Amino acid sequence: MKKDIENFYVGKKVLITGGLGMIGSSVAHRAFALGATVTIVDAVKEPYGANFFNIESIKDRITIIVGDIRDKVAMKEAVKGQDVIFNFAAQVSHNDSISDPFLDADINYIGHLNVLECIRAVAPEAIVVNSGSRLQYGPIQYNPVDELHPLDPKTPYAFNKVVAENMYKYYFHIHSINTVLFRIANPYGIRCQMKHAKYSIVNFFIGQAMKGNTIRIFGDGEQKRDYIFNEDMTDAFLIAAATPSAYGQVYNLGSGIGTKFSEMAETIVESVGNGDIEFVEWPENYLNVETGDYVSNISKITSELPWEPTTSLQVGIKNTIEYYQKYSIHYF
Amino acid sequence: MKKDIENFYVGKKVLITGGLGMIGSSVAHRAFALGATVTIVDAVKEPYGANFFNIESIKDRITIIVGDIRDKVAMKEAVKGQDVIFNFAAQVSHNDSISDPFLDADINYIGHLNVLECIRAVAPEAIVVNSGSRLQYGPIQYNPVDELHPLDPKTPYAFNKVVAENMYKYYFHIHSINTVLFRIANPYGIRCQMKHAKYSIVNFFIGQAMKGNTIRIFGDGEQKRDYIFNEDMTDAFLIAAATPSAYGQVYNLGSGIGTKFSEMAETIVESVGNGDIEFVEWPENYLNVETGDYVSNISKITSELPWEPTTSLQVGIKNTIEYYQKYSIHYF
Repeated sequence: MKKDIENFYVGKKVLITGGLGMIGSSVAHRAFALGATVTIVDAVKEPYGANFFNIESIKDRITIIVGDIRDKVAMKEAVKGQDVIFNFAAQVSHNDSISDPFLDADINYIGHLNVLECIRAVAPEAIVVNSGSRLQYGPIQYNPVDELHPLDPKTPYAFNKVVAENMYKYYFHIHSINTVLFRIANPYGIRCQMKHAKYSIVNFFIGQAMKGNTIRIFGDGEQKRDYIFNEDMTDAFLIAAATPSAYGQVYNLGSGIGTKFSEMAETIVESVGNGDIEFVEWPENYLNVETGDYVSNISKITSELPWEPTTSLQVGIKNTIEYYQKYSIHYF
Repeated sequence: MKKDIENFYVGKKVLITGGLGMIGSSVAHRAFALGATVTIVDAVKEPYGANFFNIESIKDRITIIVGDIRDKVAMKEAVKGQDVIFNFAAQVSHNDSISDPFLDADINYIGHLNVLECIRAVAPEAIVVNSGSRLQYGPIQYNPVDELHPLDPKTPYAFNKVVAENMYKYYFHIHSINTVLFRIANPYGIRCQMKHAKYSIVNFFIGQAMKGNTIRIFGDGEQKRDYIFNEDMTDAFLIAAATPSAYGQVYNLGSGIGTKFSEMAETIVESVGNGDIEFVEWPENYLNVETGDYVSNISKITSELPWEPTTSLQVGIKNTIEYYQKYSIHYF
């Protein structure tokens, strides 16, 4: 990370919603290390990714608020005086958004609207970072997918991410809030919850392999995905927030590399040295939202920002496994 | 209207949300005339378009429920047993969505989600019609605008119409609900409220002229708009709902003709024989959401459905003026 970007955070007040989750806590660690005054807001709602252990080593030197982004009073208080706000609180499951579309809308759209309205009211100078998803694109028409690819979101999770992105753009254009927006590929890495497959399938498979279980792959596993390590993402978020030319922009955030699903699973089994793989039929409720191969075109972010992914899937999986071997008690 | 489409409605149970408004009440009259059993749900909320006079001549032969589409219990009861559901309840103002983005989201998105969830639960065979807006397109890149034009919605009203459309498509694809979707150009006509300019600017100008007031045009009035008469729209809605090939489709609904804003106003002043026109500066809060000329490309709907607009702007304005001259006491 460039020196001027590192210096940007010295003494800055940084708020992170969803700050106990994988991405939020990783940003908290980095922002704290760079000299920021860090506050976390997290609703600690099951089954999302909140885990107090994620911020164990810095917990006495940051502020932690247990609160919901949908709470108007609490959020107005939380955003006041902040310089940079990473708004990562989310309902994280694509499939759960199908079973409860109201909840997904309420957290992933209305909750974010609440945060933005609070920012407009009491922190209009703050820089605001949000992360959307590759699922906003829906069925993929060409690979690698650039930011101009049509958006044809197929589930509530996906269309709520689209409306949230449109809303953030609106706050940038109409209310002059400095926003930076991302569409994340398939994230994985340290500090992720390991109990279910609702968010990171890579982490879930690592957990399965560590327990010596059989990893079940739906279909032939030939579909390509773009796996991005969370520490690489963390860099991107911090760099973008410190770069005024990024305000108002939307960036794909991925590795730029397509890896077959089965190859990802094989890498995990080999790296863990345990578990095995079984190929099974697609369950019907998955099939109808399957969108085909996905590889991010990351030329916009790599050309406009001083960032590029530096962690290969092999290294990222290895680092992740080591993390969970060391701290297994806190995640399993 | 073709005979088989007219026959389609004989004995059908038809529910219309927002049924006391301009569009909903016009559909109610036509569906009733075609032999349908009509139920209206309307929240009768100010400042939207509900007016009991709109259904005066049929009020004793239809069912009227004063209820809100956000009410889960009431809506489940209302949709049960219905064959065709026209879901027109809406927050209608582009500008009000800027001052209260929560309310716009709550009615125009979450309220519609509630209706769809009720339909999925108790009326999964129903045909469901919804209307979006030309504002979903945002800044216009080419004219006439076809349905493949990018969507870049610039206000909460516009992005909530986009997310609602995505949601309707989702209920079609994933939950097999037969939906028909529209993106309406600039509607005007009989049965519209005449108190404010929040919905139909044509109607508002007609009211101004009828009162002998000065019509104020922001800017030079050179921007083109596509004005569609509500009785033409009503035909399109009824025809589409009766046409299975329309299910799952999105159609532009307009006249296909671009008319300069100033020309529309001049036509009104001439037709009324009263009022005059003044050109004034754009107020700042309007300027930043202005999207340029807009003309609908209606070749998809006119080629796929037995429908075309039949009312010229001159005739539509004349009919509208006559309606309000006759019934002025109920609207002014």
